[in-house]
Amino acid sequence: MQKLTIIKVGGKVVEDNTLLAPLLEDFIAIKGKKLLVHGGGKLSTELSNQLGISVQMINGRRITDADTLRVVTMVYGGLVNKNMVAKLQGLGCNALGICGADLNLITAVKRPLKNGIDYGFVGDITQVNVEKIIGIINDDIIPVIAPLTHDGKGQLFNTNADTIPAELAKALSAFYDVDLVYCFEKRGVLEDENNDDSVIKTLTRKSYEVYKYKGIIKDGMIPKLDNGFDAINQGVKHVYITNAKALKTPQEGTLLKR
Amino acid sequence: MQKLTIIKVGGKVVEDNTLLAPLLEDFIAIKGKKLLVHGGGKLSTELSNQLGISVQMINGRRITDADTLRVVTMVYGGLVNKNMVAKLQGLGCNALGICGADLNLITAVKRPLKNGIDYGFVGDITQVNVEKIIGIINDDIIPVIAPLTHDGKGQLFNTNADTIPAELAKALSAFYDVDLVYCFEKRGVLEDENNDDSVIKTLTRKSYEVYKYKGIIKDGMIPKLDNGFDAINQGVKHVYITNAKALKTPQEGTLLKR
Repeated sequence: MQKLTIIKVGGKVVEDNTLLAPLLEDFIAIKGKKLLVHGGGKLSTELSNQLGISVQMINGRRITDADTLRVVTMVYGGLVNKNMVAKLQGLGCNALGICGADLNLITAVKRPLKNGIDYGFVGDITQVNVEKIIGIINDDIIPVIAPLTHDGKGQLFNTNADTIPAELAKALSAFYDVDLVYCFEKRGVLEDENNDDSVIKTLTRKSYEVYKYKGIIKDGMIPKLDNGFDAINQGVKHVYITNAKALKTPQEGTLLKR
Repeated sequence: MQKLTIIKVGGKVVEDNTLLAPLLEDFIAIKGKKLLVHGGGKLSTELSNQLGISVQMINGRRITDADTLRVVTMVYGGLVNKNMVAKLQGLGCNALGICGADLNLITAVKRPLKNGIDYGFVGDITQVNVEKIIGIINDDIIPVIAPLTHDGKGQLFNTNADTIPAELAKALSAFYDVDLVYCFEKRGVLEDENNDDSVIKTLTRKSYEVYKYKGIIKDGMIPKLDNGFDAINQGVKHVYITNAKALKTPQEGTLLKR
């Protein structure tokens, strides 16, 4: 099978051109088929604050009322997505910026209440339109995917930007040898959040549970790793958590193992 | 040749679901190939005001500094575009939301100074990638196009939302019988802006100049009509200016004539 590399880019890198430019250069140097999923949570929080919209996060997930949905639709679907596409085009890469509503690529349902918490317009993915994504990839187009989904009835949803690449990776692993790489500011999952050299080289489901129990792994890292383990257990070849500057050497970050 | 209808939707209709929903239903009922271009200027002005970013318009064109470019990228590329796509998908229409940077569809250059005015990040279109747009249309995908272009070197531009459909119409008129329909709040170009029944049924270049000289046609209507006449003079079959509620009967609005 052909190789497909799915890169998730989040954190400061998406809003800072001095960080983004080298990342995108590394991205286009990746051989084989590839696909980029981005976040934009910090920019969304910033814009919400500027607009006086309250920001509420629970376990790294954003409570999304109607105003917040507008904010994330603007930031993810517009600002971050189109800037990345323009930058990639500037590097000669045939990028296409899309979200889950475009071409009906990713459908979702409103997240049911969990522990009495209503997440609002947050979508849990129900289906990935694999055929259409393969069609795009095989046309040598590089999809740049914003973390928005839809219900197929006209409603957009905010969907966790770490879940989308994992769901894509799982769905596409029947057709490609998929590597999934989560990029962020740190060099990997850290044993000591204040020591950037304390990268945990490999993480199993079991050791993950221990780190979580001890409070070493927490907050936004939890959905990222839950998604990563989910992917590795469902046919994805490799899942790495690594630094955005280390896209060429993801093995220097944290590798998830079954 | 096959028929292609290009609809431009702007004004309040893009931000008001009670207006947008029936418009999109009328849109999907149009027979033959079709394509939607949207604006979002009022929402951009509103967001700029909320963020304390000054808004400056000259002859219906927005002076676009870096902050304003962020605003229009969010509003056009994200909020308006993705909402329309989700709504169209909800109606069973295979919509794809894109801007000029996606797939390198529309390139532009920074508008040169005009009468000493620097428009900032405003792009004048240099090329429409006709082959790619035809590819999309012939795959029975409905393009929903946000009025953003790029320079091919990484820079996004704000481009007038009336110019984009006109340039598309001109470029595609060698391949399709193109009708271009500008939709807005009024029933057409009005002789008396306070009398919605005073629709000018046909407008020639000559009568347009007279209305402009008299100050009857002004502001944002000028680029719309300049673009419309440009299109009609370069192979586009029909250009209508009509009400967003009258998409089924554009001939009740204003028809431009050579």
